[in-house]
Amino acid sequence: MSKPPPRLQARSPRGFQDLSGHAVRARTKMIATIREVYDRYGFEPLETPALEYVDALGKFLPEQDRPDEGIFALKDTDEQWIALRYDLTAPLSRFVAQMGQDLVLPYRRYQVGSVWRNEKPGPGRFREFTQFDIDTIGTASPAADAENCAVLAEALEALGLKRGEFIVKINTRRLLDGVMERIGLQPGSADPQSLCVLRAIDKFDRVGIEGVRLLLTSGRKDESGDFTKGAGLSAQAADIVLDFMQAGQASRGETLSALARAVANAPSGRAGLDELEAIDRILANLGIDEGRAIFDPGIVRGLAYYTGAVLEAAITIEITDDEGRRRQIGSVAGGGRYDGLISRFTGTDIPATGVSIGVDRLMTALSLAGRIGASQAEGPVVVTVFDKSRMADYQRIAAELRAAGIRAEVFLGEGGLKAQLRYADRRGAPVAVIAGGDEFAAGTVSLKDLIAGRALSAEVAGNEQWREKSRAQVTVPRGELVAQVKAILQPPA
Amino acid sequence: MSKPPPRLQARSPRGFQDLSGHAVRARTKMIATIREVYDRYGFEPLETPALEYVDALGKFLPEQDRPDEGIFALKDTDEQWIALRYDLTAPLSRFVAQMGQDLVLPYRRYQVGSVWRNEKPGPGRFREFTQFDIDTIGTASPAADAENCAVLAEALEALGLKRGEFIVKINTRRLLDGVMERIGLQPGSADPQSLCVLRAIDKFDRVGIEGVRLLLTSGRKDESGDFTKGAGLSAQAADIVLDFMQAGQASRGETLSALARAVANAPSGRAGLDELEAIDRILANLGIDEGRAIFDPGIVRGLAYYTGAVLEAAITIEITDDEGRRRQIGSVAGGGRYDGLISRFTGTDIPATGVSIGVDRLMTALSLAGRIGASQAEGPVVVTVFDKSRMADYQRIAAELRAAGIRAEVFLGEGGLKAQLRYADRRGAPVAVIAGGDEFAAGTVSLKDLIAGRALSAEVAGNEQWREKSRAQVTVPRGELVAQVKAILQPPA
Repeated sequence: MSKPPPRLQARSPRGFQDLSGHAVRARTKMIATIREVYDRYGFEPLETPALEYVDALGKFLPEQDRPDEGIFALKDTDEQWIALRYDLTAPLSRFVAQMGQDLVLPYRRYQVGSVWRNEKPGPGRFREFTQFDIDTIGTASPAADAENCAVLAEALEALGLKRGEFIVKINTRRLLDGVMERIGLQPGSADPQSLCVLRAIDKFDRVGIEGVRLLLTSGRKDESGDFTKGAGLSAQAADIVLDFMQAGQASRGETLSALARAVANAPSGRAGLDELEAIDRILANLGIDEGRAIFDPGIVRGLAYYTGAVLEAAITIEITDDEGRRRQIGSVAGGGRYDGLISRFTGTDIPATGVSIGVDRLMTALSLAGRIGASQAEGPVVVTVFDKSRMADYQRIAAELRAAGIRAEVFLGEGGLKAQLRYADRRGAPVAVIAGGDEFAAGTVSLKDLIAGRALSAEVAGNEQWREKSRAQVTVPRGELVAQVKAILQPPA
Repeated sequence: MSKPPPRLQARSPRGFQDLSGHAVRARTKMIATIREVYDRYGFEPLETPALEYVDALGKFLPEQDRPDEGIFALKDTDEQWIALRYDLTAPLSRFVAQMGQDLVLPYRRYQVGSVWRNEKPGPGRFREFTQFDIDTIGTASPAADAENCAVLAEALEALGLKRGEFIVKINTRRLLDGVMERIGLQPGSADPQSLCVLRAIDKFDRVGIEGVRLLLTSGRKDESGDFTKGAGLSAQAADIVLDFMQAGQASRGETLSALARAVANAPSGRAGLDELEAIDRILANLGIDEGRAIFDPGIVRGLAYYTGAVLEAAITIEITDDEGRRRQIGSVAGGGRYDGLISRFTGTDIPATGVSIGVDRLMTALSLAGRIGASQAEGPVVVTVFDKSRMADYQRIAAELRAAGIRAEVFLGEGGLKAQLRYADRRGAPVAVIAGGDEFAAGTVSLKDLIAGRALSAEVAGNEQWREKSRAQVTVPRGELVAQVKAILQPPA
């Protein structure tokens, strides 16, 4: 044979991560909880392929050798460019257009899955992440937008967040259009100066109100010395925008009154007010009060394709960040109405509105908020192996525990009891089962309570430790195995 | 503005599919059921990225412009080839090697996820499909192989398959090595003639025993006239292989006796017998009898990297295929021991064994077997809208139903009652709620029982139809909404 191949390096591409054990379990549970809420609201599941034609994704790439402008693209066998989806909205639009008359409208669907962005990775910035979207296709009713808020609030509560720990903030692009009209800009977000104004408003969280003022007018230099060009508004026009942005009140009704003053007589402003008034009424009837959903004129959402209501959900729990500052955890979901997106395929507008949860971000938020703890003993019961020739007996012990619904495994590695107990400990096992010649002869098994053991070894030091630790081990008749393990797992109150 | 862009075609790349509604629900449920069994056996979840470095995937591609030899590959921003994973075993090997000492061995892990193959698509052959794998890393014990069989059998039963409807077939490459030794071939599957023999055995299901004989000797021409070269064995050597292949009996003990004769004194044959004997003992103690797991020397599994036990799970329920022939549904899972795969990274062998369920194939099998029916009314209760100005009231009705755990949605489209009831019907709604001016004035709601309605309209024809159908509608006090809907959903026995 030829010489051995060079040793391979075991690593994954930059910006990609492995998730294992507790992190996967917590995420699976979180997704199931959200799905349960979405199901109850009548949404239907959809799964689309990871790969789509690049043109269907709505990326209009230059004719170049490698179109890696933010997406992972490659040429299919028939020389057409295909790419990994970068969100779940573009594939949904393709699906809706492809189904045509076969799709029953209005169509409420949810989809959870990975999306991929070919961007520069960084700390906490991954190139593969998970989104969980709901969208309602085929209705222009503000009721659908209100539902998005309600279902999102309910999902967050189902995950254990309490009132006051999160807030859904709602705005509408139509009101922003009204503001644009008042300051003499073309309403509609395609025009560059309007986009620049929207981007300035969107940066409020990072740059504060005076930062936004600079971005609206002459431009802003940040701490690192980087200069961002301004939108070139006059001081007076900027004031109109800033007043609008800050029109939000704790009460939705008061915000509506303030907004009515801010957008004055602009026709699209009036349409925006009507929209928010309808949303307010429906939210009230769905029992979503101001503790859970408010109107916030400072919400813009970056995407150019939004045409009406926009919303964002933020976790308001405060944490101390790396620089020692107290700050809110922040945005975990966002979305809005995009009535024009599907027309790229169909030629006619199909009204649509949706919201996307950033699953990884929400996981991080719940974890920072202490809602996803490292469960101390979620490992299986470990059946240790004293005598390999009795492997079948050990397997039978594990099988009995499993038949009673208890997670259990037999130790299949090498090493004596000490190594096996260390394994059990690292596995997060609640109990180790020990059975050697003595136990088999006497018809018993020994059970080591590793939960109590861990608690004791944390508390007790010195000479007492051994005696205390040994208390955490009992020898019981073989026939009582399951009952005794259950007693350790769920001690009587 | 410039002229509008040309209308896009809404389609997904060839070989990819969308899954929606019931199909997604059924699959999600199936995956949860399997996961529950794997959890109970002490397996831990893992999720690896969709993209890996091509060299880590174990594809040794020629230096060419586009390495599309069966995988979807592209160049990363740093000019390294990355690709979508084509199975879950290669990423696991990379993960294990990368974790090194931080991984507690033995490591039992499960992973469910998409894999991608850049192959020619065909009917039922997709380029993206889902695998659900378990693997145990770091133990050479046959107990791990026995566990694979047991956990697989238990998972299939948890999905509703009964004894006799599936079978796990076990063999070991070591026995095949013993046969190779007897016929004068180099044991170990890397040698081309041995691989040719393995491939011949593997084709038994498709070509029958005489077909295998031809493939072992002079070669075989199929119905279409295509000729497959033979392995060039003598008639006598072929007989030895054919006897071995057919040594399987209903009883595992009898198979072991027959195999002892077939592999005679070949040393690797003896090692294979020891392995199967150990597996037999552990299966017996795990309560897995011959109704669920047998030894079948005809099982090879194609992959060259297997080094010991191999296994396959087949659904034995018979169906009538497209040509009108009765046949068993066939293989839905397979795997085996691959002690050498991780050494590509580590330089030393790490024993490993696993089994992979083809999730899409298993779904198809369960569906063909009638175990996944189209549930007649799994849609939500649809609250119809008579008067749009009362939208908030309709939303409140839906909210009340949801608060009671009932799936419910408000109709948000256009159209009168008839269109809305047609929508509810197409949605698979069990009940439509109807409330117009009369109902609001009287403090009532009307409930249309669409389950009964569908049953009646299937049975009753002609004049009676209207009268019967109207029976399926009741008007009840508004306060009894939830109770009455529940009564329709779960009629008293």
